[in-house]
Amino acid sequence: MSSVVNSSVCVKFFSMRTLKEAIRPTTFIVSSKLNDALGLDITIASETFQHTGSFKFRAAYNLALSVEQDEILTASSGNFGQALAYACKLTGKRCTVVMPETSAQVKIDAVRGFGATVDLIDTKQIGRNERVAELAALMPEAYHASAYDDEYVIAGNSTLGDELAGKGFDAVIVPVGGGGLISGVVTGLCRSGDTAEVFGAEPLIGNDATRSFREGRLIPNDTEPTTIADGARTISLGKLNWPIIRDGVKDMIEVSDEKIADAVRMYYGLANLKSEPTGALTLGALLEDLERFACKRLCIVVSGGNVDPAVYKELI
Amino acid sequence: MSSVVNSSVCVKFFSMRTLKEAIRPTTFIVSSKLNDALGLDITIASETFQHTGSFKFRAAYNLALSVEQDEILTASSGNFGQALAYACKLTGKRCTVVMPETSAQVKIDAVRGFGATVDLIDTKQIGRNERVAELAALMPEAYHASAYDDEYVIAGNSTLGDELAGKGFDAVIVPVGGGGLISGVVTGLCRSGDTAEVFGAEPLIGNDATRSFREGRLIPNDTEPTTIADGARTISLGKLNWPIIRDGVKDMIEVSDEKIADAVRMYYGLANLKSEPTGALTLGALLEDLERFACKRLCIVVSGGNVDPAVYKELI
Repeated sequence: MSSVVNSSVCVKFFSMRTLKEAIRPTTFIVSSKLNDALGLDITIASETFQHTGSFKFRAAYNLALSVEQDEILTASSGNFGQALAYACKLTGKRCTVVMPETSAQVKIDAVRGFGATVDLIDTKQIGRNERVAELAALMPEAYHASAYDDEYVIAGNSTLGDELAGKGFDAVIVPVGGGGLISGVVTGLCRSGDTAEVFGAEPLIGNDATRSFREGRLIPNDTEPTTIADGARTISLGKLNWPIIRDGVKDMIEVSDEKIADAVRMYYGLANLKSEPTGALTLGALLEDLERFACKRLCIVVSGGNVDPAVYKELI
Repeated sequence: MSSVVNSSVCVKFFSMRTLKEAIRPTTFIVSSKLNDALGLDITIASETFQHTGSFKFRAAYNLALSVEQDEILTASSGNFGQALAYACKLTGKRCTVVMPETSAQVKIDAVRGFGATVDLIDTKQIGRNERVAELAALMPEAYHASAYDDEYVIAGNSTLGDELAGKGFDAVIVPVGGGGLISGVVTGLCRSGDTAEVFGAEPLIGNDATRSFREGRLIPNDTEPTTIADGARTISLGKLNWPIIRDGVKDMIEVSDEKIADAVRMYYGLANLKSEPTGALTLGALLEDLERFACKRLCIVVSGGNVDPAVYKELI
């Protein structure tokens, strides 16, 4: 297996890369301006420079590399779709992505740009999972990948936990939508024997993870929440993610859309970091209660940076 | 010497740091989207996450650490002033910065935020260097630091050249205003025996470096150029920088303001990188002539990321 990259003039051939070879290490950023402004000791672990601009490539590449099927079907609000489309391009597989028609245009365009088929749906008419079930019946040979509730996804995301381990963090805060990233981070840290406490940060609008965590059982949202954190517009935590979260996470933090917006603006102004709203959930979680994390060595994960210019202009 | 950081609750003491301890290593970013879009093999060396958001901290900290005077006076369109203000804060020195009143507001605010005195001037009425001379007469004890034409500045910037050395780049492209950064990069690469070709990228509006390079003698601009690359609104290359550039640079590339703007937009959309216009000069240089750099391992330096939101909104 080989792939052609760069211009047609200077063709280079690569053999298929392993997961660790294919992913880009996370980018650690320390902003003295941000730390001084908040009076906190924060290290940002930014996945905005990961392939396709979010952590999802870790999961997607592992999945595309591992499953035996040549065709993969998924539902995604955008970043997983984009990552899976690119991973399938790199591994020579076919890919179909079901996306809400309200997804950021930049994400829809990117999925198509990698050669995948995009199936746009009106989520008021049909749920993403229902549409995927319809398509799965039409494509019996395809592997149906959840963007978060999948062993390969969690294993792929666990590479981020590996990278965060051994850095001496007291607390690691991770954005939560379906729970795929935080499950991976818990798994990776645990595997390394790192004892950092892991916190989840989810939108207050759509706080199923917090309610589930406090009740000790999976509780879904009634509908897809309309938070600006479009990567966390999920109905429920995944079934595979739930026990990992229940047993491995210290607490869940609900973040208002106002604090998410503040966080995007602070990243712009104080850290020169372009974050998408979902990625800014973890800084938003700090803004919700600055005292709580005083005097701790904090790592906050920025899960991705893909945000439509029109949205971003409003936020900054 | 010690400094108090973070919140007052959890006081930490640090001894004065050496230059290498104080600077943050440059951030290497490879964007497959950007590379695929241009058909080039580009590694971005981003100084946007350097302390105070630009490479200037390398120069400023070295200067503040090295000179014996307790007060430092400079003229700067913003990034050097901000960096010097922060470096003086860290080293316990006083700082006065002469800035054009047209400087980005975010940069003026930042300089003041670090405790420095800002002296705003109308550059149509008085040149920055003239105003500094006036102030220098009033402050005979102060060290007068050029933002680029100073041995300590070049030595500080040479640490970036050290970091770029040994990476196997065929060509390194560096933004050029007064020539302090490119002089440092040439010095650092040369010291390491790295044979990468170094190119300068400067605004077409204000192409004194290109004209100087082609004529083999220093030729200034008539007035401060009004390019959107506000970090490169310089009259002339520095006298100390000139021989290093003349002898160590392969070529100068003139970049139109349109291509600079395109580059800022491409960084936003394809690489999740927030660049200021001056930082985007080097990608702009590639956009001016894509064929020229085909099949080469390229490193393009993004010198900083500090840009007013109002300007950035227009650009993206």
